[in-house]
Amino acid sequence: MIYVSRQEHFNAAHKLQNPNWSDERNREVFGPCANVNWHGHNYDLIVTVKGYPDPETGFVVDLKGLSVLIRKHIIDQVDHKNLNLDVPFMADKMASTENLVVAFWEILERELPQLSDTARLHSLKLYETPRNFVEYYGETDSIKH
Amino acid sequence: MIYVSRQEHFNAAHKLQNPNWSDERNREVFGPCANVNWHGHNYDLIVTVKGYPDPETGFVVDLKGLSVLIRKHIIDQVDHKNLNLDVPFMADKMASTENLVVAFWEILERELPQLSDTARLHSLKLYETPRNFVEYYGETDSIKH
Amino acid sequence: MIYVSRQEHFNAAHKLQNPNWSDERNREVFGPCANVNWHGHNYDLIVTVKGYPDPETGFVVDLKGLSVLIRKHIIDQVDHKNLNLDVPFMADKMASTENLVVAFWEILERELPQLSDTARLHSLKLYETPRNFVEYYGETDSIKH
Amino acid sequence: MIYVSRQEHFNAAHKLQNPNWSDERNREVFGPCANVNWHGHNYDLIVTVKGYPDPETGFVVDLKGLSVLIRKHIIDQVDHKNLNLDVPFMADKMASTENLVVAFWEILERELPQLSDTARLHSLKLYETPRNFVEYYGETDSIKH
Amino acid sequence: MIYVSRQEHFNAAHKLQNPNWSDERNREVFGPCANVNWHGHNYDLIVTVKGYPDPETGFVVDLKGLSVLIRKHIIDQVDHKNLNLDVPFMADKMASTENLVVAFWEILERELPQLSDTARLHSLKLYETPRNFVEYYGETDSIKH
Amino acid sequence: MIYVSRQEHFNAAHKLQNPNWSDERNREVFGPCANVNWHGHNYDLIVTVKGYPDPETGFVVDLKGLSVLIRKHIIDQVDHKNLNLDVPFMADKMASTENLVVAFWEILERELPQLSDTARLHSLKLYETPRNFVEYYGETDSIKH
Repeated sequence: MIYVSRQEHFNAAHKLQNPNWSDERNREVFGPCANVNWHGHNYDLIVTVKGYPDPETGFVVDLKGLSVLIRKHIIDQVDHKNLNLDVPFMADKMASTENLVVAFWEILERELPQLSDTARLHSLKLYETPRNFVEYYGETDSIKH
Repeated sequence: MIYVSRQEHFNAAHKLQNPNWSDERNREVFGPCANVNWHGHNYDLIVTVKGYPDPETGFVVDLKGLSVLIRKHIIDQVDHKNLNLDVPFMADKMASTENLVVAFWEILERELPQLSDTARLHSLKLYETPRNFVEYYGETDSIKH
Repeated sequence: MIYVSRQEHFNAAHKLQNPNWSDERNREVFGPCANVNWHGHNYDLIVTVKGYPDPETGFVVDLKGLSVLIRKHIIDQVDHKNLNLDVPFMADKMASTENLVVAFWEILERELPQLSDTARLHSLKLYETPRNFVEYYGETDSIKH
Repeated sequence: MIYVSRQEHFNAAHKLQNPNWSDERNREVFGPCANVNWHGHNYDLIVTVKGYPDPETGFVVDLKGLSVLIRKHIIDQVDHKNLNLDVPFMADKMASTENLVVAFWEILERELPQLSDTARLHSLKLYETPRNFVEYYGETDSIKH
Repeated sequence: MIYVSRQEHFNAAHKLQNPNWSDERNREVFGPCANVNWHGHNYDLIVTVKGYPDPETGFVVDLKGLSVLIRKHIIDQVDHKNLNLDVPFMADKMASTENLVVAFWEILERELPQLSDTARLHSLKLYETPRNFVEYYGETDSIKH
Repeated sequence: MIYVSRQEHFNAAHKLQNPNWSDERNREVFGPCANVNWHGHNYDLIVTVKGYPDPETGFVVDLKGLSVLIRKHIIDQVDHKNLNLDVPFMADKMASTENLVVAFWEILERELPQLSDTARLHSLKLYETPRNFVEYYGETDSIKH
């Protein structure tokens, strides 16, 4: 089993605001991240798939194809967008990095078979800043790590 | 003459939108950067000052002090903000990296004497993304580079 | 289960010197790392906690709070210090990156419940240089990796 | 159990070309990576070994020694070489990052006991570019991740 | 005057070989860089242009447009190529980073007016590896630096 | 004129302490940098030389040779050392990054003719941390920047 990764990036605006809370409560819990007029980030996303190399190509998966798939199904939905307002799959969710990475997983797990019927999605790593990031391995891989 | 630099960072939302133009014209010129609901970046700012080291400290300028000064006069004004809506010194200007860096220069040139009466502001380098950045050396240093 | 990480850094001096050995033996085993007058590093520490996002915040843990906790209990103890002489929890231990990361784990495992009663400490990654680093997952997670 | 890592790098030329296929088929599958006159990369290799720190040294393994071992058995075989033409252990294999990392594993697993009889090889991470990389944990560690 | 930069990258094979010299002489002067079967690199190219921001856009130059221009006239000529064999403008020249950067300058200086009639090419910075790089400011800017 | 650069690194301990001042005064001015038991850094040094490429090699200067020269005359003097106690050319000077870079300049300007009789030393850039760095262009290049 080999783990193959591709990194993509996008720029987006967001804010952390629980609509059931007062502005004061939002500001108290989220601090400057609750700024009503938004702020934003350069996000980096690393997608890791696992499988065995095809003896004819030496590839677990064609990384060019993986890049095209990530761009079409993820990056084009979020790049230069407002994560709270412009992204249907984030509607009704807090625009946290944790919720983003789970939403990305659902999309990629559904779309990956387009590219390969043997490789499986292993993990997503999403950097909000170079010092803050999250990783997700899917729900079914519950003994992971 | 020695050049001493300090790097700071901030996260902000913005959009590129000329208010005198139609949405179509804005979208045509600025592409996704004109997204009406904003997008955002992790900005990195490098401030360079020049001067001669003080023989008693070995410092051109105390970098801890320079960091405090940049944070107070720049970072606190723009971090977790909307550059178009929340930042008084960017009102009535396009929120481009070029215009930001000139506005930052004016502030730092005015405030640097607080920290040192011998060091002079040399340059600012502002990264909007790791691949897109601008540099400014001030107007008076016209033979610079 | 989502894994959330925060990176912090500190600068410290140390040397590798077994007090039960001769200087010759220390120099033979540790080479320049045994320099009697010390050397030092810019260390980077990545702390990873795991848990489920709180539906009201979207957070596994508040990363700002995690940063404050790491700074108070780790960084303030080691930053701009001598790891052999100034750090009580490293007394009587070799100041290796391996021993540092285990000591940091013990502190953070004890202090993390201050911040969250659901998130658990998952791993620590400590860079001594960009090319040399260690990772630790705690003793109890013995099937880890 | 602590995981200790060392990063090394090398520069090499290669191409992706299945000798059983026509040039058209190779170009169709591998795109520009099939360029008949080769292309190349700056590769980064991270070797991770695991074990318990020796109480006398504080080391799982001497990283200077690990670096020497990696350079002798891997880097000297591939640095400033053509991976398809100059590297005996890649003969008759597609010069993909996946196949490289498996070949490196076999070499390091055989040679690591030279350096330590307690540390075991845990994983290899090989960057072909900063955005494309693979990881391998060996065949026997089949429940890994 | 503001300096605006865009970074692009490409992967290529090359070797350093003076055709007027014996293999022994080439190996003696260029060491492993003379490997007859080539080696390669991930190159990073930073293009800097200078000018005054347009008051209507806030741009010295549209960086998206600059990226397209660099890709069309430089990257597409060298990416996934052999710099000695596949690149017409490097024929009959040593494939050194110095010679590459001068050749790139000539192309970009000729093509930049396509994009802007006010911005001028200021400098090129070309990384062969993260530790080895060259910069060029053109011949006419002879007092530069 | 082309500018060619090589990056090297070293790890060292130091403190900022003016011997003519009380401990209180040192602590007041230098803060934690005055810690009596030292602290340390991973330093990165970028050496830039300028000249015209030799038509036979394509090189301004052989970067492998420049690396050897920097290692012999700078890195071997400071790596894994205490900058205040172990480095003769820093004796009687504050161990600031500013003073280090001037001392390195004097050494390299004297030694560079060993390597090339046409290339001249252009600048040194010394990182104490990724966020704090200095640059020096020598005294004689007084109109620089």
